[in-house]
Amino acid sequence: LKNLILIVRRFLEKSWNIGKNEPRKVIHCLKVGIALSVVSLFYYMRPLYNGVGGTAMWAVMTVVVVFEYTVGATLYKCLNRATGTFCAGFLAIGIHWIANQSGKRFEPIIMGVSIFILASAATFTRFIPAVKARFDYGTMIFILTFTLVSISGYRIENLLNMAHERVSTIIIGASLCVITSILIFPIWAGEELHKLVISNLEKLAESLDCCVAEFFSDSEDTTTNTKKMLAFKCVLNSKASEETMANFARWEPAHGLFNFQHPWGKYLKISASMRSCACCIEALTSCINQKDQASELLKNQLTNSCQQVSSSTSEILKELALNMKTMRKSSRMDMLIQVKSNAIQELETLMEQLSGLLIIQPKNDQEKPVTRTSSTNVIPLVEIIPTATFASLVIEIAMRIEGVV
Amino acid sequence: LKNLILIVRRFLEKSWNIGKNEPRKVIHCLKVGIALSVVSLFYYMRPLYNGVGGTAMWAVMTVVVVFEYTVGATLYKCLNRATGTFCAGFLAIGIHWIANQSGKRFEPIIMGVSIFILASAATFTRFIPAVKARFDYGTMIFILTFTLVSISGYRIENLLNMAHERVSTIIIGASLCVITSILIFPIWAGEELHKLVISNLEKLAESLDCCVAEFFSDSEDTTTNTKKMLAFKCVLNSKASEETMANFARWEPAHGLFNFQHPWGKYLKISASMRSCACCIEALTSCINQKDQASELLKNQLTNSCQQVSSSTSEILKELALNMKTMRKSSRMDMLIQVKSNAIQELETLMEQLSGLLIIQPKNDQEKPVTRTSSTNVIPLVEIIPTATFASLVIEIAMRIEGVV
Repeated sequence: LKNLILIVRRFLEKSWNIGKNEPRKVIHCLKVGIALSVVSLFYYMRPLYNGVGGTAMWAVMTVVVVFEYTVGATLYKCLNRATGTFCAGFLAIGIHWIANQSGKRFEPIIMGVSIFILASAATFTRFIPAVKARFDYGTMIFILTFTLVSISGYRIENLLNMAHERVSTIIIGASLCVITSILIFPIWAGEELHKLVISNLEKLAESLDCCVAEFFSDSEDTTTNTKKMLAFKCVLNSKASEETMANFARWEPAHGLFNFQHPWGKYLKISASMRSCACCIEALTSCINQKDQASELLKNQLTNSCQQVSSSTSEILKELALNMKTMRKSSRMDMLIQVKSNAIQELETLMEQLSGLLIIQPKNDQEKPVTRTSSTNVIPLVEIIPTATFASLVIEIAMRIEGVV
Repeated sequence: LKNLILIVRRFLEKSWNIGKNEPRKVIHCLKVGIALSVVSLFYYMRPLYNGVGGTAMWAVMTVVVVFEYTVGATLYKCLNRATGTFCAGFLAIGIHWIANQSGKRFEPIIMGVSIFILASAATFTRFIPAVKARFDYGTMIFILTFTLVSISGYRIENLLNMAHERVSTIIIGASLCVITSILIFPIWAGEELHKLVISNLEKLAESLDCCVAEFFSDSEDTTTNTKKMLAFKCVLNSKASEETMANFARWEPAHGLFNFQHPWGKYLKISASMRSCACCIEALTSCINQKDQASELLKNQLTNSCQQVSSSTSEILKELALNMKTMRKSSRMDMLIQVKSNAIQELETLMEQLSGLLIIQPKNDQEKPVTRTSSTNVIPLVEIIPTATFASLVIEIAMRIEGVV
C-alpha cells in the first residue's frame, strides 16, 4: 500500500510540474472541457436541437476526436473529417442506388465487393507519402463513413436524410472546435515552429560558445557548463516534431506575423542545416574529453583566434535568431559574415605560422609527444571550419527567408 | 486537361512503384478490406446478430479505427479501446446514479460539471510522457465513451444495457482485427524494429568503409560511391520511427525469435550510439571534401593503418548485425575487438613516428604547408578513434542484449 501511495504521489508531483512549467497545456485541457460541455448543453436543450435529433452523438464524437493542441492540427482534422464524410457519403449513396437497381439478389454482393475494393484502395493511398502528410485522417474517415452509410443504407432506407444529418452534426462539432481553439488562447502550430527554430538557433550558438570556452579553459569544473554544452542535443532530436508542426502550420490561416503562404518549408531547411552543425559540435565535445592530452603551448597560441572564429559564428547564429524574431533583415548580418570570414582567414594564417613553431619546438623538449598534441589541438580548428561553413549555409538560407517574409 | 491526366498518371505510377517495392503494404490493404467485409457480412446475417442489434455500427467503427499496419499497433489500440470504454462506462453509470439520486434539478448541472472536470483531467494526462507513450488512445476513448454514455443516459434510461452492447460490439470488432492481423501475413512491429536496427548497422559499416576508401583513393569518380557513403543519413533520421516501433513492440505477444519480455529498450540504446557514430561519419565526409589539400606523402604513410582501423571497426559492426540476425553471441566478437584495439594502437604509434617525419621533411621541401596537410590528414584518424570508441560502446550494449536474449 505504501508503494502505491508513493507512486501516486510521484505521479501527481510530475503532473503538477508539467502544469506549472507549461500553463498553456492546462489551458488546452480546460478548452477541451469547455467545448465538450457546450456540446452536451446543445444536446440538453431539446427545442434548439430538434432538427438533428439522435445523431447528436456525432457532434460529441467530432469534438473529442478532432480537438488537438494546436490550431493547425484542429483545422487539419476538421477539414479532413468534413470532406472525407462528404465524399464518402455521396459515393455510398451512388453505389447504393446502383445496387438497388440491380435487384435484391445482387445487392449484398455489390455492396460487399464495393466495400472491399474501396477500403483496400483508400488504405493503400495512406501509404503514399504526399497523401499521408495531408489527408491521412481524411481517408480514414472516408472508409468509416462509406462503410457505415452502405451498411445502414441496407436497413434504414432514408439514406439521404441520414447523410444530411451526419454531415450537419459533424459541421456543428467541427466549427465549435475551430471557434474554441481559435478564440480562447490560440496555440498556433506555425508560431510554435517559429519559436522552436529560434530557440534551437540560440541553443546552438550557446553550446558552440561553451564548447570552445570549455576546451580552452584550465579549470576542472566541467559540471556547470555541461548542461549548456549539451543543449545542441535538442537540435539533433527535434526533426520529427518540426515536420509535424510544419505540416499543421500549412493549414492555418494568416495570424500574427505570419501570412497565409508563409514559407514553412524553409524552416525545415534551416533546421536541417542546424542539425549538421549540431553533428559537428557533437564531434567537438569528444575533443573536449581528450583535452588533457593537448599541449599548453599550442593551446595558448590558438586560443585567441579560435575563440574569435567561434564567437563570430555564434554571433551570426544569434543575429539570425534575432532577425527571425523581428522578421526583418538587418544590415548587421553582412558585416558579421565579413567578420567571420576574416576570423577564419586569420586562424588559417596563424596555423601556417605555427607550423614553423612546431618544427623548432621539439628540439627544446623532445619528451612532448608533438604529433599527438598537434592532432588533438588542431581538431577544434578543423571542426570549427566546417561549423563555420555550415553556419554560412544557414545564413544563405536565412537570407532567402527574410527575402520572402 | 492534359496536365490533369499527367498528374493522375504520375500518381498511379508512384503508387504502382510503392506496391511493387513493398508487397506487404498491399497485403495490409487487402487485410483491411477483408476485415471490413466480414464485419459487414456479420451485419447482413440477421439471425446470427440479433443480440447486438443496431449498435453493430460500433463494430464497424472499431475495425476502421483500430486496424493498423503492425500487429503491435493493432493490439495497442484494441486493448486501449476496450479498457478505455470499460472504465468510462462504469464511471459514467456511477455518476449517473448519483445525479439521479439528487433530483431533476441538479442532474444536468452535475452531469455538465463532471464532463468538464473529467474531460480536462483526462486531456491533461495525455501530456504526461509515460501516459502518452502507452495509453494515449485509451484516454481519448475514455473521454469519448464517458461523454456519450452520460449524455445518452439522460435520455434513454436503460443505461446498463447500452453499455453492455457497446462493450460487446467493440470486443467483436477488436477481436476480428486482432485475428486478421495475426493470422493473415502478420507484420510484427518488433520484427520490423529488429530488421531496421540490423540494416542500420550494416549501412553504418558500409558508409564508414566507403568514406575511408574515398578519402585515400586517387580517382575522381566520386559519383559511384556517394550513395553508399550517404547511407548513414538513414541512421540519423530513424529515431522517431524506432521509438514508435519499440512502443508497439511492447504490446506484442511472443513470436518467432522474440520472447514476451524482449528488451526492446536496448534496441533504442544501440541506435542512439549508432546515431552518434553517424555524426562522426558526417564530420568525416566534410574532410573528404577537403581531400585535395592533403599531401600525398603523409596520406600514403597513413593509408594502411587507417584502413585497418576502419575495416576492423566496420567488421565489428557487421559481426554485430550478424549476431543480432542469428540471435547468438559469437566468439569471434572478442577477437574482433582485440583486432580493432590493436589496429588503433598501431595507428597511434605510427602517428608518433610520423611526428619525426614531419619535422625532418620540411627541410627538404619548405613550400609544402606542413601544418595544413598534417591537420587535414590527421582528421580521419582522430575521427576514427571516437568512431571506434563509439563502436566499442555499441558492442558493450550488444553484449548485454545477447546475454538477455
